[in-house]
Amino acid sequence: MRIAFIGLGKMGSGIAWNLLEAGHQLTVYNRSPEKTKRFADRGAAVADSPAEACRNCEAALTMLADDQAVEAVVFGKDGIASALPAGAPHISHSTISTAFARRLTSEHEANGQAYLSVPVFGRPEAAENKKLIVVAAGASDLVERFRPLFDAMGRATFVVGAEPWQANAVKLCGNFMIGSMMESFGETFAVMRKAGVDHHAFLDIMNELFGSPVYKNYGGIIADERFSPAGFVLKLGLKDIRLVLQTSDEVTAPMPFASVLRDHLLDALAHGQTDLDWSSVGIVAARNAGLK
Amino acid sequence: MRIAFIGLGKMGSGIAWNLLEAGHQLTVYNRSPEKTKRFADRGAAVADSPAEACRNCEAALTMLADDQAVEAVVFGKDGIASALPAGAPHISHSTISTAFARRLTSEHEANGQAYLSVPVFGRPEAAENKKLIVVAAGASDLVERFRPLFDAMGRATFVVGAEPWQANAVKLCGNFMIGSMMESFGETFAVMRKAGVDHHAFLDIMNELFGSPVYKNYGGIIADERFSPAGFVLKLGLKDIRLVLQTSDEVTAPMPFASVLRDHLLDALAHGQTDLDWSSVGIVAARNAGLK
Amino acid sequence: MRIAFIGLGKMGSGIAWNLLEAGHQLTVYNRSPEKTKRFADRGAAVADSPAEACRNCEAALTMLADDQAVEAVVFGKDGIASALPAGAPHISHSTISTAFARRLTSEHEANGQAYLSVPVFGRPEAAENKKLIVVAAGASDLVERFRPLFDAMGRATFVVGAEPWQANAVKLCGNFMIGSMMESFGETFAVMRKAGVDHHAFLDIMNELFGSPVYKNYGGIIADERFSPAGFVLKLGLKDIRLVLQTSDEVTAPMPFASVLRDHLLDALAHGQTDLDWSSVGIVAARNAGLK
Amino acid sequence: MRIAFIGLGKMGSGIAWNLLEAGHQLTVYNRSPEKTKRFADRGAAVADSPAEACRNCEAALTMLADDQAVEAVVFGKDGIASALPAGAPHISHSTISTAFARRLTSEHEANGQAYLSVPVFGRPEAAENKKLIVVAAGASDLVERFRPLFDAMGRATFVVGAEPWQANAVKLCGNFMIGSMMESFGETFAVMRKAGVDHHAFLDIMNELFGSPVYKNYGGIIADERFSPAGFVLKLGLKDIRLVLQTSDEVTAPMPFASVLRDHLLDALAHGQTDLDWSSVGIVAARNAGLK
Repeated sequence: MRIAFIGLGKMGSGIAWNLLEAGHQLTVYNRSPEKTKRFADRGAAVADSPAEACRNCEAALTMLADDQAVEAVVFGKDGIASALPAGAPHISHSTISTAFARRLTSEHEANGQAYLSVPVFGRPEAAENKKLIVVAAGASDLVERFRPLFDAMGRATFVVGAEPWQANAVKLCGNFMIGSMMESFGETFAVMRKAGVDHHAFLDIMNELFGSPVYKNYGGIIADERFSPAGFVLKLGLKDIRLVLQTSDEVTAPMPFASVLRDHLLDALAHGQTDLDWSSVGIVAARNAGLK
Repeated sequence: MRIAFIGLGKMGSGIAWNLLEAGHQLTVYNRSPEKTKRFADRGAAVADSPAEACRNCEAALTMLADDQAVEAVVFGKDGIASALPAGAPHISHSTISTAFARRLTSEHEANGQAYLSVPVFGRPEAAENKKLIVVAAGASDLVERFRPLFDAMGRATFVVGAEPWQANAVKLCGNFMIGSMMESFGETFAVMRKAGVDHHAFLDIMNELFGSPVYKNYGGIIADERFSPAGFVLKLGLKDIRLVLQTSDEVTAPMPFASVLRDHLLDALAHGQTDLDWSSVGIVAARNAGLK
Repeated sequence: MRIAFIGLGKMGSGIAWNLLEAGHQLTVYNRSPEKTKRFADRGAAVADSPAEACRNCEAALTMLADDQAVEAVVFGKDGIASALPAGAPHISHSTISTAFARRLTSEHEANGQAYLSVPVFGRPEAAENKKLIVVAAGASDLVERFRPLFDAMGRATFVVGAEPWQANAVKLCGNFMIGSMMESFGETFAVMRKAGVDHHAFLDIMNELFGSPVYKNYGGIIADERFSPAGFVLKLGLKDIRLVLQTSDEVTAPMPFASVLRDHLLDALAHGQTDLDWSSVGIVAARNAGLK
Repeated sequence: MRIAFIGLGKMGSGIAWNLLEAGHQLTVYNRSPEKTKRFADRGAAVADSPAEACRNCEAALTMLADDQAVEAVVFGKDGIASALPAGAPHISHSTISTAFARRLTSEHEANGQAYLSVPVFGRPEAAENKKLIVVAAGASDLVERFRPLFDAMGRATFVVGAEPWQANAVKLCGNFMIGSMMESFGETFAVMRKAGVDHHAFLDIMNELFGSPVYKNYGGIIADERFSPAGFVLKLGLKDIRLVLQTSDEVTAPMPFASVLRDHLLDALAHGQTDLDWSSVGIVAARNAGLK
């Protein structure tokens, strides 16, 4: 397929590469153009603007940091909205708010364009190794038509609803599940340390109990305080928890754990952890217990 | 070894059976004597009191519901404390408070007896199938001497400290980790349902993401609301969270997630969920969101 | 002074009337024009649009429900921004977000206009009886120039900073203090009822202890469940708590009580309390305790 | 009346003095005897043990720090229980747990003695100046018979139930109301400081709004960080919040604000605030916001 791909950051570049490998015809755009080089070498076209990337494409894929970045690329000057061919979908892989997903849905529709929300779970290594978990929502014929793309980027694709924002709700709730695990480790590690028990031993037991690679990975990072370089910076983690709280507000469902998480992420931010990995929320409980 | 085994409930009977199978010589005691029958048939001696079970044993193992039950069996009339041979340890597998573990330690010591805390992770099926995770703390020579017992009851043994109560702290924190996962599912399932997303689909994605049998098991129970018959009743789950909060207080470490969990377990109790499985704490968030 | 006054709801009409009584020359505007009648009878001019109200005024005062309403009246067609004379301030009495107050500040400045945030504390009766507490922030010469207006509407004026949004932060935090008191009553009333103690007796004791008219008033409303007609509807109370959480996020300060309040207000909303008085958040704790 | 008075600490000495002034005949006992001197000079008898104080009395009043202290004085060697004449009540003014109040009720009853819980609100100055708020529960004829004592120690007496523990529930919930106010100030002061607003100005506005001497007093202490010398030390404040949580558990009523308060008091304890005034819980929010 002829694909416009916009956003070649840590996640986007892994995805775009796998689409190329799968034989798709890519036109890429990135704000800082040096990241486009290796894609050009591998046969991709390079565009000077999102609009130029979109001309003649069958779908425009975006992988960007947040609502503001997507808004700029879609509705800004020379943006996707100005050039996406009628009927072609904008497929957003970014972790954006459910409210903004609804706006994308209605504005693209008003332009005679289509829109799908297809966020993914996985860190940059997973993107590179085609191990992402892909969550799609939107008109089912469109989702099916572009499924080969999703299959090319991940290990499993889940379709969760006919309204695009529903996929974003799933993604945000999934990130909350991970954040909630981090906070749980943070609280127990603090108790363990104050109880004179090696918290690594506790982690070993939890790994035996839960048998989860995610627990093993993040639990290990928190136990060792390996927060830099960050896989996913804390300020973006806070953004996601903010968004899950907004979604919980939109659907009128209290989320007390998410509220605690928000407050601990703010505590982390106020203590200079902005650019550490977001799992560093797991040391807030220790600090509040007077440790270190 | 010559073992006194006291408490043949769901968990205890599985453990005791595996000890018999491993060739140990058991004298069993249970408050309701009918449960001792199949052990007698398999060659165990049956005692009329905890004290009688202990005479001449090398160790007395207890697997009981809570502090009160252990207190009665140890310090009550014809209790373990009155009969355990000098130097032999009382090995408690129950999920008891860290404070009570310290009392057991000091009182047994004052009697010239020994004490180990060896709580286990796992549901009754795991006890039956020798799949428990065993957590031991206490004097290391004693732990090593009785390790063959632990190997006979579980799939892995972890030694976490020289003070018995430390193993109870680990066990309580582990149960908190499970409860925390339940609450996290409860909150996200509520959001999913109100967002019009099938919460089973969300669970499938979380299973793919976390890859944990514990998530799969409890997530499924909560998603399907299969809370009865209970594997572990809510009132005992509340007891455990109460105890983890007590431990956090003893070591002076705040646990905001555990606090939320306590409040939601009380909410559950106030709504008639006392004898449902403790994972039914996962429907409190849904009820608070106005569902059902 | 020549004053444009926009927004003659429950609060605005009390304020505007007192300004008239104090001898100021008012031009009023209200979306539903029937509310302007008694002001016209008392000598005020009536305008057909915010812009028309502003022509030739020395200051434009607004008292509206929320950010959206203020945005429409200021930046919409025939809005204040299009007509406010150079140098004259827009004085906003509404409970708006700190972020929107910053936007008003910069946009009015870009237009050569001025801006003051002057929110007030008090229910409609207080507005009518000149008993409001007035909180002002902005350029101090401007605040001083218009102080006679503030003196005409309230019992005390507090100046809290040179940046207008600071007054909004104060107002939001003050509303949080009231909401926090409501939640505290909610939790204790629930415990009292379940303990078999008349919660009215508990309230009497709290009135003796705190000696606060605000405790007496809201405590009584919650104790008697007199939530309708609403003095201030719950959906607006939730808006305010949302905004205080946004402010806490902007300044990076965790607010765990505000987070609990948010979740209980959502719980209330999910149980049909949208148009009840916001003090009805005080029955959420009772419901969660299984009462009624 | 012939009164045994046990416990001449900051609170007890004020109360006992006012009883003497009112013409009652006191026999006093205090663990450290030097505090009895001024009572002896004023005509009180001094006893060597609680038991001796009780002989021949019409009622035995205790004002002690916590459950453990009351337990020692009542059930210890030469305790009240061993000497209180049949039919005479033990009247406990201490802030004790509802569970222990029930135990006192049943044990005194088993001894043919009576029991009333009559906790008080007020700081030492209030005790001295006869300004306490007195909360009584127990058999109503007994409460009425001893009402002259209560009138001699406080400014108002409230009778809240026929079961003594109900008065303790009221006292604990009242202390929670105060603690909750402290936390609310803590959170708003932190936001104010980070917003560049003088938090003393915010306090002035809250004083105008709430018009409560309690807000004025504690708000001022927190704003100025005047935590030492302590009027009521933080470790006792934590004890009270622990007890209110126990009561909420006994009656099955969630208290999320009390849970937050517990966690912040633990945070305070972990940061060396043990012997500061308990209002210093109000700086936890500031610390968590990265202040100072």
